[in-house]
Amino acid sequence: MKVSRRDLLAGAAGAVAVGATARGQAPADPSKVRGKPPRATGQRASAEKVQRIVRGATSSGTPHQDLMGIITPSDLHFERHHGGVPDIDPAAYSLLIHGMVDRPTVFTLADLKRFPSVSRIHFLECSGNLGRTAGPKTTPGQLAGLTSTSEWTGVPLATLLTEVGAQASATWLLAEGTDAAVLTRSVPMSKALDDALIAYGQNGEPIRPEQGYPARLFLPGWEGNTSVKWLRRIEVSDKPFMTREETSKYTEPFANGTSRMFSFRMDARSLITYPAYPVTLEHGWVEINGIAWSGAGKIQRVDVSTDGGKTWSAARLQEPVLSLAHTRFRHLWNWTGGEAVIMSRAVDETGYVQPTRAALLEQRGPGTTGYHLNPITGWIVQASGAVIYKEEAWG
Amino acid sequence: MKVSRRDLLAGAAGAVAVGATARGQAPADPSKVRGKPPRATGQRASAEKVQRIVRGATSSGTPHQDLMGIITPSDLHFERHHGGVPDIDPAAYSLLIHGMVDRPTVFTLADLKRFPSVSRIHFLECSGNLGRTAGPKTTPGQLAGLTSTSEWTGVPLATLLTEVGAQASATWLLAEGTDAAVLTRSVPMSKALDDALIAYGQNGEPIRPEQGYPARLFLPGWEGNTSVKWLRRIEVSDKPFMTREETSKYTEPFANGTSRMFSFRMDARSLITYPAYPVTLEHGWVEINGIAWSGAGKIQRVDVSTDGGKTWSAARLQEPVLSLAHTRFRHLWNWTGGEAVIMSRAVDETGYVQPTRAALLEQRGPGTTGYHLNPITGWIVQASGAVIYKEEAWG
Repeated sequence: MKVSRRDLLAGAAGAVAVGATARGQAPADPSKVRGKPPRATGQRASAEKVQRIVRGATSSGTPHQDLMGIITPSDLHFERHHGGVPDIDPAAYSLLIHGMVDRPTVFTLADLKRFPSVSRIHFLECSGNLGRTAGPKTTPGQLAGLTSTSEWTGVPLATLLTEVGAQASATWLLAEGTDAAVLTRSVPMSKALDDALIAYGQNGEPIRPEQGYPARLFLPGWEGNTSVKWLRRIEVSDKPFMTREETSKYTEPFANGTSRMFSFRMDARSLITYPAYPVTLEHGWVEINGIAWSGAGKIQRVDVSTDGGKTWSAARLQEPVLSLAHTRFRHLWNWTGGEAVIMSRAVDETGYVQPTRAALLEQRGPGTTGYHLNPITGWIVQASGAVIYKEEAWG
Repeated sequence: MKVSRRDLLAGAAGAVAVGATARGQAPADPSKVRGKPPRATGQRASAEKVQRIVRGATSSGTPHQDLMGIITPSDLHFERHHGGVPDIDPAAYSLLIHGMVDRPTVFTLADLKRFPSVSRIHFLECSGNLGRTAGPKTTPGQLAGLTSTSEWTGVPLATLLTEVGAQASATWLLAEGTDAAVLTRSVPMSKALDDALIAYGQNGEPIRPEQGYPARLFLPGWEGNTSVKWLRRIEVSDKPFMTREETSKYTEPFANGTSRMFSFRMDARSLITYPAYPVTLEHGWVEINGIAWSGAGKIQRVDVSTDGGKTWSAARLQEPVLSLAHTRFRHLWNWTGGEAVIMSRAVDETGYVQPTRAALLEQRGPGTTGYHLNPITGWIVQASGAVIYKEEAWG
């Protein structure tokens, strides 16, 4: 709103007060009232209702439509568990590393924290991160809320494997959680020795309970449940363990008759978080923005289309672009009215291009599982300004 | 703790259970109990008591002794206010920009969010960030808790100044808050047009109330209170405004008889956060670690001494080193016993070297204020392993 010279003559404070009358509990002029004292821990503004999207008994998603930048607040990081969030006493916590090692060892939490540590900003994503209730009223958090980005701190698993004397002939390890599902996954030694962490910190503080408190495995760029939470045991071996979920769920048939047994790496994907349902747009300039990520490294480019995929433009990427982390992209668009289909497409540093839904389904075939689906998606801006989801619209 | 072959024969789960008996509420074996369901917002583990250090009615500090990495959780970001934390209805919020501009304008929060945005990870520091109760039992958070790092999102102030037509002859602006103190500061146009933001996001979510909700000025690298919170008015001018605090408090006398009127930039500083009071060390390898930052850009090097400043070694810096953000440094040290004085010294990309307390006090003279003091500090590891603070020990 523009103000006239007369408004200004009435005084700046007056001009502000005019705009600050009708409201709920907040005082009409907050500068006339002494504010609240400091607190030991802060709380969100009462007007902000940002929260996770709880889906049944085993998961909740990050509300990407409400977020900015790349860091996900820890209390909004997605959660996924097969037996609920266990209650673990950190003083009694221990991690056993045994099997093909020279010195089987039990590490307490204090032991783990004594080793040289590293901190890295990385995304985590559940392999089943494509919303199934994808009707018109799907939000970004419902569509792809099972990915979040945090700064993780911990000890490199390679350090611990050296400490216990992992044998040269070892090629796999088993990671086992202390949850009621006793989740177990097989992990190649090559990943364990590369960039795997035993993480105990998240965004500066101890990991939250639903993220694996007090310590978890963290495998950057790999499907979420290989980063076994509440980690209590690592067994070093020379073959994969073929655990329950690995055999029953996580082997993926393809259209050509082959199956992929360990689909560890999360392929590149992008998600427009604004505008999206439930936003209603006004005509004029709109900053389309969203997040992109790849389990193969850095995002190299994000293309945005505002005409249903006929033409594409490279979005601006927020620097610094970090490897294996969400990258915020932004693209200015002048919406002059009429229906428009907006879409985004990620390209990572390996040259991998996020596929269309049609190409992905053709490759995966009729027997496809719901895992590792990363199609190009978008939103329809209706002539009214209402923004909705419509799966068939993105090809 | 090492385990014997016999322990292992009893089974890994058994070995873990042995280590997991005596404790409070947590079940003896968490894997035998179904865990908690997902929640709309997470909470910290009940065993973790991390919280800010409340200092009287006007500030609270970040507990650096409990934190890792560089991101400060938003609810632990330091707070400092002169009139309490105001309660502002975001729907009634507005920002007036007037003075030497062609188009005086009132922006609503929705208006601000419509402009192209940026996100940047930056520290913020109060100019009075040197703890005064620096007895032996001083923690890192008490010594230097008035600095924190967040990912800030907002609109560049330069964009808004273009929008309102700031006049070419303008050289300063006034920023005014809606708090009960109506905090006002003068800011040079050069900074406003360089990297100043009107920020509405912090670590992915809306700014917290004590950080300026719903929108604040953010001046990267500058003393905290120039980043006026709860910003309601910007007046563009051709001279500084010489506001109450600027004339009464923030002009600093020097030993040579001169005074420095606007000490905007925060000089480089470092802080060892571990080991520090109240830790008690055991003999052996210790990862000394902490944070360093500079208002002049990137940290180039952090030197660590474990012999009271006689010799120094370059610490490892956690990559990526971000400009105007906390940088985590780490240095391995083998403590073989006896009293030791550990210290850290930051060097930034301009070549500026964090000064000793003696050099700083000599330069500032007997009439020094408590602002902009960034001396080298450290901790004394006593022969018992107890770690204490002792101001005189760092020279």
